[in-house]
Amino acid sequence: MILRTRSGAVPPYGYPGGVTFPVVGMVGGGQLARMTHEAGIPLGIKFKLLSDTPQDSAAQVVSDVVIGDYRDLETLRAFAQGCDVITFDHEHVPTEHLRALEADGIPVRPGPDALVHAQDKGVMRAKLDAIGVPCPRHRIVEDPDDVARFAAEGDGFPVVLKTVRGGYDGKGVWIVRSAEEAGEPFRAGVPVLAEEKVAFVRELAANVVRSPHGQAVSYPVVESVQVDGVCDTVIAPAPGLSQELSAQAQQLALKVAQELGVVGHLAVELFETADGRILVNELAMRPHNSGHWTQDGAITSQFANHVRAVLDLPLGDPRPRAKWTVMANVLGGDYPDMYSAYLHCMARDPGLKIHMYGKDVKPGRKVGHVNTYGDDLADVRERASHAAGYLRGTITE
Amino acid sequence: MILRTRSGAVPPYGYPGGVTFPVVGMVGGGQLARMTHEAGIPLGIKFKLLSDTPQDSAAQVVSDVVIGDYRDLETLRAFAQGCDVITFDHEHVPTEHLRALEADGIPVRPGPDALVHAQDKGVMRAKLDAIGVPCPRHRIVEDPDDVARFAAEGDGFPVVLKTVRGGYDGKGVWIVRSAEEAGEPFRAGVPVLAEEKVAFVRELAANVVRSPHGQAVSYPVVESVQVDGVCDTVIAPAPGLSQELSAQAQQLALKVAQELGVVGHLAVELFETADGRILVNELAMRPHNSGHWTQDGAITSQFANHVRAVLDLPLGDPRPRAKWTVMANVLGGDYPDMYSAYLHCMARDPGLKIHMYGKDVKPGRKVGHVNTYGDDLADVRERASHAAGYLRGTITE
Repeated sequence: MILRTRSGAVPPYGYPGGVTFPVVGMVGGGQLARMTHEAGIPLGIKFKLLSDTPQDSAAQVVSDVVIGDYRDLETLRAFAQGCDVITFDHEHVPTEHLRALEADGIPVRPGPDALVHAQDKGVMRAKLDAIGVPCPRHRIVEDPDDVARFAAEGDGFPVVLKTVRGGYDGKGVWIVRSAEEAGEPFRAGVPVLAEEKVAFVRELAANVVRSPHGQAVSYPVVESVQVDGVCDTVIAPAPGLSQELSAQAQQLALKVAQELGVVGHLAVELFETADGRILVNELAMRPHNSGHWTQDGAITSQFANHVRAVLDLPLGDPRPRAKWTVMANVLGGDYPDMYSAYLHCMARDPGLKIHMYGKDVKPGRKVGHVNTYGDDLADVRERASHAAGYLRGTITE
Repeated sequence: MILRTRSGAVPPYGYPGGVTFPVVGMVGGGQLARMTHEAGIPLGIKFKLLSDTPQDSAAQVVSDVVIGDYRDLETLRAFAQGCDVITFDHEHVPTEHLRALEADGIPVRPGPDALVHAQDKGVMRAKLDAIGVPCPRHRIVEDPDDVARFAAEGDGFPVVLKTVRGGYDGKGVWIVRSAEEAGEPFRAGVPVLAEEKVAFVRELAANVVRSPHGQAVSYPVVESVQVDGVCDTVIAPAPGLSQELSAQAQQLALKVAQELGVVGHLAVELFETADGRILVNELAMRPHNSGHWTQDGAITSQFANHVRAVLDLPLGDPRPRAKWTVMANVLGGDYPDMYSAYLHCMARDPGLKIHMYGKDVKPGRKVGHVNTYGDDLADVRERASHAAGYLRGTITE
């Protein structure tokens, strides 16, 4: 694929007398866009942002911001003027809008044919089946009675129900123990996917980045610890993971990236079962919470590699810089002001890497994360969880 | 010192329902401001920039930019509204303007009483003499005949002449071999400082960061390799430097920071002599080229620690993350477009850390730098110098 530059020049981006580095258009103003902008600054990449409001996390720190609604095609079209490529902070842009942008000649990365697998869990499951990637037992269900039939086809209840579109961080997901409990997911009028409730021993994530010319890099497989359906802690690499299963997870993620035509960062969330299998839980085609550790723990962060991938630049080294890196999400607590807690955490641990998103504190909302690294996993983990707990207000000493 | 917040609230920055992180006002839109903004993003610090033009390096990437002239007091005063502290990308703001801002109640860090030592080489030398810090032999000279007398007082010519204000990267500095050559420095009407030309074996830099409450951290002492009066390469730590001389240089820099009341980053440029002494060459009170290696080579970068210091936050760990880190400046060459060279460098070395400043390429202009790190100094150095040379166009294979 050939990138157009803002100047209209063709590769190698030459025009006399000026800097000709490309412009990345980022749709969505959340923390992923904020951290992608941060990673783009040293790369010399110009960044243009489409944000819902000027107060959004990324809009606070980016120079070139357009305020507008990503669900409106004309807004997207106007935004795309002057961008050499369009990429995303989230998966919510309607697939048909992405096709329209591509038809206009704007490179969209990941493209709609890939992104649909992260937008629609039904499409995703069908594709993974077709390419032979192991998933939990699943099928689309019609109504609560059909859920009961799905349960009877396997090991019975409980069953996991998911709306195929619109879920996020535990929203749009139900665990039901009977047909009587299965009414709610059908009320949205969106197709519902039923999945066996996997008796997993832990959750893993395999993060890879792929470029349009087919180069790909794979980060170490991590363990992701969820609390109430939200990622709490990520440990890199996943402790005690066999070399065989680690290689299997990385190969699986690289295969998914290639077969689905992903460009940019792909997170493959996995279940590890007691009998040593891995099954795909979810896919995300953008920088992902399970890759935040790479900012301080890898030679090249997921954000820098996402920028490099969408511009078809050579990818950076994904290898770890420390024996262990731990990421802990900072959730909002009851007290709206984190500044004095933040000061305390810095004083307690001069090696703590804090990443704040500039978001208003609301109870349970992700407002930042911390990274710690070192040789002693217990120590590295304690430092991260203490800081996250102190910032939230659940630890006060 | 107590910071006011944008909301007018007092520490601990509490007001109901919102994020109350402070606002740092940065005067000057160069690459140091750009990289300080980058370091401030994860800290959740809001950044406001006073820049000469919207095309300046930092103005391209900062959200909140005021275009104006830092030499105009009313511009500075208007800019300072809404800032919790003012800091600098350069040392050129008139001392009396800084005093006026302080009188208005705006914290200025470093303050004018400290910054004057980085603005005026005559004031700097007098102070370093007074606190017993070793310097090259020096005195203010009146005219070319006085330069001849200065030479005769020591080992004769050559003599180094410097205008006490306004010098930068070799500008404002002359090496003269006779009184006849000594006319030019006096033409600017600025006092002229004469210094012995030190027969140094190499140049070192000791970088420290100091906060208003007196906490200080010291980075490893580095070797700085100059070409044509401009920093070319920095090696961290300085190879073969004795532990004794290293400790002496760090203690010297910490003493200067304390005695001069520096807040923020202080770079002390040093000469190492053949007989094992260190003498102070120059001071800079801001993030400095000799500290760029810390972005990828230290636990906390000079930029992050500068932000933490000016906000009186606890400082971050300054220790190195790699055995060797090498920084090489990228200077502009004859070809204005670096993008294809940049792509080549990424492909050749996936571990290369590129930092571009978004500046138009002009021959000899600093437009970026690269950092490399690893265990083998010769390899780390070759990688950095190859990339810098390739980007400049002096290496083509």
